[in-house]
Amino acid sequence: MRTRMSRHDQPSFIPDFVPGEVLDNWAVSKVVVSGHPDFKPGDLLCLVTGWEEYSLINNTTLCRKIKHSEFPPSYYTGVLGVPGITAHAGLFEVAKAKKDEYVFVSAASGAVGQIVGQLAKLTGCYVVGSAGSDHKVNLLKTKFGFDDAFNYKKELDLDAALQRCFPEGIDVYFENVGGAMLEAVLRNMRPYGRIAVCGQVSQYNLRRPDVSPDLFLLVGKRLRMEGFLVGDVEEMVAYLNEGKVVYVEDVAEGIEAAPAALVGLFSGRNVGKQVVALARE
Amino acid sequence: MRTRMSRHDQPSFIPDFVPGEVLDNWAVSKVVVSGHPDFKPGDLLCLVTGWEEYSLINNTTLCRKIKHSEFPPSYYTGVLGVPGITAHAGLFEVAKAKKDEYVFVSAASGAVGQIVGQLAKLTGCYVVGSAGSDHKVNLLKTKFGFDDAFNYKKELDLDAALQRCFPEGIDVYFENVGGAMLEAVLRNMRPYGRIAVCGQVSQYNLRRPDVSPDLFLLVGKRLRMEGFLVGDVEEMVAYLNEGKVVYVEDVAEGIEAAPAALVGLFSGRNVGKQVVALARE
Repeated sequence: MRTRMSRHDQPSFIPDFVPGEVLDNWAVSKVVVSGHPDFKPGDLLCLVTGWEEYSLINNTTLCRKIKHSEFPPSYYTGVLGVPGITAHAGLFEVAKAKKDEYVFVSAASGAVGQIVGQLAKLTGCYVVGSAGSDHKVNLLKTKFGFDDAFNYKKELDLDAALQRCFPEGIDVYFENVGGAMLEAVLRNMRPYGRIAVCGQVSQYNLRRPDVSPDLFLLVGKRLRMEGFLVGDVEEMVAYLNEGKVVYVEDVAEGIEAAPAALVGLFSGRNVGKQVVALARE
Repeated sequence: MRTRMSRHDQPSFIPDFVPGEVLDNWAVSKVVVSGHPDFKPGDLLCLVTGWEEYSLINNTTLCRKIKHSEFPPSYYTGVLGVPGITAHAGLFEVAKAKKDEYVFVSAASGAVGQIVGQLAKLTGCYVVGSAGSDHKVNLLKTKFGFDDAFNYKKELDLDAALQRCFPEGIDVYFENVGGAMLEAVLRNMRPYGRIAVCGQVSQYNLRRPDVSPDLFLLVGKRLRMEGFLVGDVEEMVAYLNEGKVVYVEDVAEGIEAAPAALVGLFSGRNVGKQVVALARE
């Protein structure tokens, strides 16, 4: 939601919101009335729709019926939706993480990060995450099975923290934060390392980047840094059913709670995917 | 040579020089005396050797005999050596430039840039280069066949210059300079663009980067940015013989001229590959 508000004066390829129009994004809705033969009252749909209790859907191109009713519908805004696929695509298609590699994930307890870490562990990587509270760091080590984790707000020197966790350096960095963390990670990458750039949450509220990473390190270490966006694909169901992947979300109740939930993302108030429940049965 | 002097406090994977020891790098030498069956007096070799008139070579692993005596030996420090292969690998293996794409090259009249531009033209790309003098810009448009070129020192606004040359944006950026140019290029890249990071000459004499490019643009545009270093391979001979590629170098005479030649690279005094002739027949 934040990146679709205008930011800097720069062109964006993600469509910006139009002030005065209803905000939209990925959501789960239940069909109440339908004139479309494929969708019947009671069906749960995963779709892009407005932040409103009732929506009129004229274009069903992006509507997907929810098949696995064993999971909470909100999972389709997270581990079974765009964030889950983002984790998978970034780790495997972009960063090409392989068994025995050293993987670092920032914002690791977030919607995407918690999945990245678990998928990397299932692949046989050594995985370390950073997060912004001791509670989150504890979650990473216990619930999500990371090999190690640290609270970046308590580290005086991010370089030292990374060297402690990765004495041999980092092969894959799943980048969610930007700024000082990215700068330190670049210095700790191993030759031929890959950085999947998923987000840079530390930068979204700045007019200009606050840190200048040394990009010449890309040359000497022959690093690849690649940004990506994903559409929507289904997987992950088997992992959830087998208990190989666990998922944590943070649900705010009602549209009145939405602004505070959004702002809270930038102070790290949430734990896991921030969901807003606009309507309940 | 410059990047092998220590820079910042950061680890480098290119070996730094050891003060007091003879500097070395790629050179062309003629064999005077040899106890090795493969190398005879009079043979010209392309190898890594000291900046000295006579060298004792104990390890011939990196020695390659020069086969094409139709070219000046110095070409093996340039278009037929590491810079030529760097241009080829960066453009095709890293950036994967294809016919009809929009290619931008910075430091375009330099040892690598002039080859990149010509190879891109041979591939059917639209190619624009930047350089630091009107003389160099003229060379790019006339001798090297670039579609367009501009003198970055005369442009008040690099964004405007890039928009003028690339109204539809840039698919491939061959990055030699870093800093403000990279910052502006990122804003002008097309979705799925590729940046081959070869060098960042504007940054080598700075303790910290002077500009913070907006790396979040990598995400929205799904850009790939990749650093690389190449070893040594032969090609390009046919292109030179057929006149499809031309080559310009700048020769300084004698080891006494070497320091000024190195410093001159940072003011852009040279045109094309800076070579130092330590000994002549």
